[in-house]
Amino acid sequence: MPSYSAPLKDMQFIFHDWLKVSEQDIPGYEDLDRDFTSAVLEEAGKVSSEVLMPLNEVGDREGCVLENGVVRTPTGFSDAFTQMKEGGWTAMDVPEQYGGQGLPYIMHTAAQEPMVSANMAFNMYQGLTHGALSAILAHGSDAQKDMYLPKLASCEWTGTMNLTEPHCGTDLGLMRTKAVPQDDGSFKVSGQKIFISAGEHDMAENIIHLVLAKIPGGPEGIKGVSLFIVPKFLVNEDGSLGARNGVACGKLEEKMGIHGNATCVMNYDEATGFLIGEEHKGMRAMFTMMNEARLGVGLQGYAQAEVAYQNAVAYANDRLQGRDVTGAKNPDGPADPLIVHPDIRRNLMDQKSFVEGARAFTYWGSSLIDRAHRMEDKDADGLVSLMTPVIKGFLTDKGFEYATAAQQVYGGHGYIEEWGMSQFARDARIAMIYEGANGVQALDLVGRKLAQDGGKHVMAFFEMVKSFIAENKGDEAFEKDFLEPLKAASKDLQAAGMYFMQNGMKNPNNALSGSYDFMHMMGHVCLGLVWAQMAKAAKAQLDAGASDTAFYETKIATGRYYMARQLPATSMHLARINTGADTVMALEAANF
Amino acid sequence: MPSYSAPLKDMQFIFHDWLKVSEQDIPGYEDLDRDFTSAVLEEAGKVSSEVLMPLNEVGDREGCVLENGVVRTPTGFSDAFTQMKEGGWTAMDVPEQYGGQGLPYIMHTAAQEPMVSANMAFNMYQGLTHGALSAILAHGSDAQKDMYLPKLASCEWTGTMNLTEPHCGTDLGLMRTKAVPQDDGSFKVSGQKIFISAGEHDMAENIIHLVLAKIPGGPEGIKGVSLFIVPKFLVNEDGSLGARNGVACGKLEEKMGIHGNATCVMNYDEATGFLIGEEHKGMRAMFTMMNEARLGVGLQGYAQAEVAYQNAVAYANDRLQGRDVTGAKNPDGPADPLIVHPDIRRNLMDQKSFVEGARAFTYWGSSLIDRAHRMEDKDADGLVSLMTPVIKGFLTDKGFEYATAAQQVYGGHGYIEEWGMSQFARDARIAMIYEGANGVQALDLVGRKLAQDGGKHVMAFFEMVKSFIAENKGDEAFEKDFLEPLKAASKDLQAAGMYFMQNGMKNPNNALSGSYDFMHMMGHVCLGLVWAQMAKAAKAQLDAGASDTAFYETKIATGRYYMARQLPATSMHLARINTGADTVMALEAANF
Repeated sequence: MPSYSAPLKDMQFIFHDWLKVSEQDIPGYEDLDRDFTSAVLEEAGKVSSEVLMPLNEVGDREGCVLENGVVRTPTGFSDAFTQMKEGGWTAMDVPEQYGGQGLPYIMHTAAQEPMVSANMAFNMYQGLTHGALSAILAHGSDAQKDMYLPKLASCEWTGTMNLTEPHCGTDLGLMRTKAVPQDDGSFKVSGQKIFISAGEHDMAENIIHLVLAKIPGGPEGIKGVSLFIVPKFLVNEDGSLGARNGVACGKLEEKMGIHGNATCVMNYDEATGFLIGEEHKGMRAMFTMMNEARLGVGLQGYAQAEVAYQNAVAYANDRLQGRDVTGAKNPDGPADPLIVHPDIRRNLMDQKSFVEGARAFTYWGSSLIDRAHRMEDKDADGLVSLMTPVIKGFLTDKGFEYATAAQQVYGGHGYIEEWGMSQFARDARIAMIYEGANGVQALDLVGRKLAQDGGKHVMAFFEMVKSFIAENKGDEAFEKDFLEPLKAASKDLQAAGMYFMQNGMKNPNNALSGSYDFMHMMGHVCLGLVWAQMAKAAKAQLDAGASDTAFYETKIATGRYYMARQLPATSMHLARINTGADTVMALEAANF
Repeated sequence: MPSYSAPLKDMQFIFHDWLKVSEQDIPGYEDLDRDFTSAVLEEAGKVSSEVLMPLNEVGDREGCVLENGVVRTPTGFSDAFTQMKEGGWTAMDVPEQYGGQGLPYIMHTAAQEPMVSANMAFNMYQGLTHGALSAILAHGSDAQKDMYLPKLASCEWTGTMNLTEPHCGTDLGLMRTKAVPQDDGSFKVSGQKIFISAGEHDMAENIIHLVLAKIPGGPEGIKGVSLFIVPKFLVNEDGSLGARNGVACGKLEEKMGIHGNATCVMNYDEATGFLIGEEHKGMRAMFTMMNEARLGVGLQGYAQAEVAYQNAVAYANDRLQGRDVTGAKNPDGPADPLIVHPDIRRNLMDQKSFVEGARAFTYWGSSLIDRAHRMEDKDADGLVSLMTPVIKGFLTDKGFEYATAAQQVYGGHGYIEEWGMSQFARDARIAMIYEGANGVQALDLVGRKLAQDGGKHVMAFFEMVKSFIAENKGDEAFEKDFLEPLKAASKDLQAAGMYFMQNGMKNPNNALSGSYDFMHMMGHVCLGLVWAQMAKAAKAQLDAGASDTAFYETKIATGRYYMARQLPATSMHLARINTGADTVMALEAANF
């Protein structure tokens, strides 16, 4: 059975040695001192290891079952959900007036990570609730907020997001679900939604569905989409539950992974719905939550790689097979542990250097969200908007790749479900697809975000890299190990951007054919920057005489690995991009 | 439900336009004319599409069930197995004296491909039988051959390969299963073997287990391993079945994929076994089959990518979502098909250019095996030995990668089991692990094969690339599109080899840290060479006025894609290799 322990040291390093959160000028950050973050994250790690991790395999094996319209979650899920509610883990960043703790988003992100590593399928019930809550918080009326938010914050009620229909996923303009206005100001919502995570289950009194639908007579396509609250049970004025609404789960999907989460076909049959925000502005309401939602999915990607990595390391230290070619390391045993072999190391270092970089990148992204929200900082908002498709697309692609790589360390045992490594890979796979498939993330990055506000945000990012390099010259080893590779990678990225500018005008396909490669390049440059900054922070701790030298030296060595062995990918992506659309678009559709 | 149709045109192209098999001087190849290969492959495709493909999902869903020592295969498997036997598909390349058809191995390989694409788990029952048959054919006594081969050739009896034990996979020297000599010349075999594919099932009268075990008192480690025949039912002199032997399936493993194949824990309790070949030479007996077995696994890798690709193309043409940014392609419909989008194209072209290159590479490898076996050509044997870890490691890594990429085209539907795309990825995953995990393939390539016979074979390969480039200069477009990229990639590969030579002596870890990257580089250069040769062959057909211009033009365009967009990976791998062991081996094991 796999195990998990939260990477608390690394989290604290990011918070305090690198980001130095409590010194930042973001309101609320002044409370994030070492003791506080340590206490919260330790507790989050504990509940993850002790309560959620043991249920991960149970959820995978049992899955959810639909009987007579009722969805039964796996054994133990309901009790664990109660523990999560009682522990106050469901609304850390929700305003206190709605029952939350009003903490910064970065704290929410860091506390979520262990829960996602330990049990991704379970954590989605609260994750979707958080998404629904955020939508109502941002766009609902005061009455709606008062009615729904406290119950969603406590997870007494859970929430869902209903976008996809059988014939439309990415292209929501094709949507058919309709919402017909009623005399009392409510709407009758009818249609079918699919892939609705946590759409129906037995762990909450009520489920608040957020549903995109079209009001008849409105604009065509995406501009005619509105957002509605459709509760499973209607809520009376006094907050008590009223009649069952016209919404039901018609089917549970059998999936590759996240079996513990109920993925539902939801049928709406003249269900009573309540408009959120303005008519026909439903997409805008969804988009305001998208940075957070996509960052959360990026976190799922690396969080699965993290738990898979931890177990791969344990196995590599434990399993005796073959001998170190440079001399036996376990001469009294029948063989040496796997970890002596260079290719096992190569694999583990790939995983480790990615996961730690990804964590840092994600927490940094969360701090930008805090800066944007708490200080109304438009530059931070623009920068995180630019980073969002990279966090989502790059971290989930790599997260799956490394969860699979961790599985490989186990040899044949990695393929046997009993050992748990297959589940990490299968669960991680969905993160590349939902909340906008990664090809759509790449399109968003290259087709929209690069040019947003006149290209201001990408220029700011390049400037950030450039000034970091300029400000940190002088240390020869640091220059060679970190600054030079970062500079080369950033140059590749800029060259790709230049190629798009010069060739995308005459044919947009010249840019779009390279969008996926660009997303990966940018991911590498972001992680390269983050690693260089972390190495600097670790070095500062060593210079200041920190006692845990092994930790900081390991941090620097892991960063050196990333710069030496991962960053060279940018030259490959640039070479691909520079060939433009010619070979990509050469074939007639019939000749594939 | 996914579908499959054998890529017959492409197979014929490889056989006749590129390899020109019937013009080769290999005995038996003179019979491989267009009509004959077409008839065989068409029939193989038919049985694959009509009989095996419909059972693929059934096998995945039902799996195998162990009850009272009996393994029940999925519904329909037994009938299909009867059809495969009756169709003569089980022993195409087996000598006629044992009931086979004595055809070249390349014919066997090509006929296997559709069966593996259509139902990998099912095809393993006959695949393992073929492996056992080959071992007895190569190392058994005449009496053993007469007793076992005809029944294995017809698959009335099936076979297995028993290597792995709970505590040892790659490092077989740790083996504990023992074989105690008896007075009558037989042995009593006792021990436990795991991961035994097709170890027990209900589709054959008898199962012939080939078991590696140690004879007490023999040499330590791998040098004391011998190979035994252990039949499930002992066979009487007259060929009739005798007593049940002391071997039983103790457990079926629950796996990530290939559910239709029974992966067994096999318990041997003083089972009667018969030595094959010499005492303590069991590993040599296994190794002689290894090129074929590993080539077969490489084929599984790309064959799963092929079927996944076919379905991704169908979906991309069918699913309407979004609009072509350069102008609507389906203006009367609600949206354009997915295939208009450049990033969908990029994905499909990655898949297509890999699969077609991989097929050609594998068939070429099979022709080298024929040349080695039928002409006792030592150079061909050396070359295919060098290529074997590349075929196995590179094609299964990429096969899984592209099966996963095909799944991505389906968006959310790719994650739902009902659509079948998840199974292709889950099934493909095992090919990276069994028959020597891919890290072990890389070690075999760099640690053994490069230097084999004084480096003669890798030099021969470089010479082959060099002379192809030299002989085909003059056509400007061909030079630019094919020869220049091939030359650059080959130069990268040679530089990596040079790095190993210069730095591996002082520290072997400098070479082994780059072994995995080298395996991938070499895979790209092999596919690059194959693509350049195929493009030349296609061009020759066009120049000669071939009527199917769309096919040949598509072939050339697909090759151009590979050269432009896949070959640049070599520079990344070289950059990684050139950093040596420093960053890879930097950490103490305790600091991971």
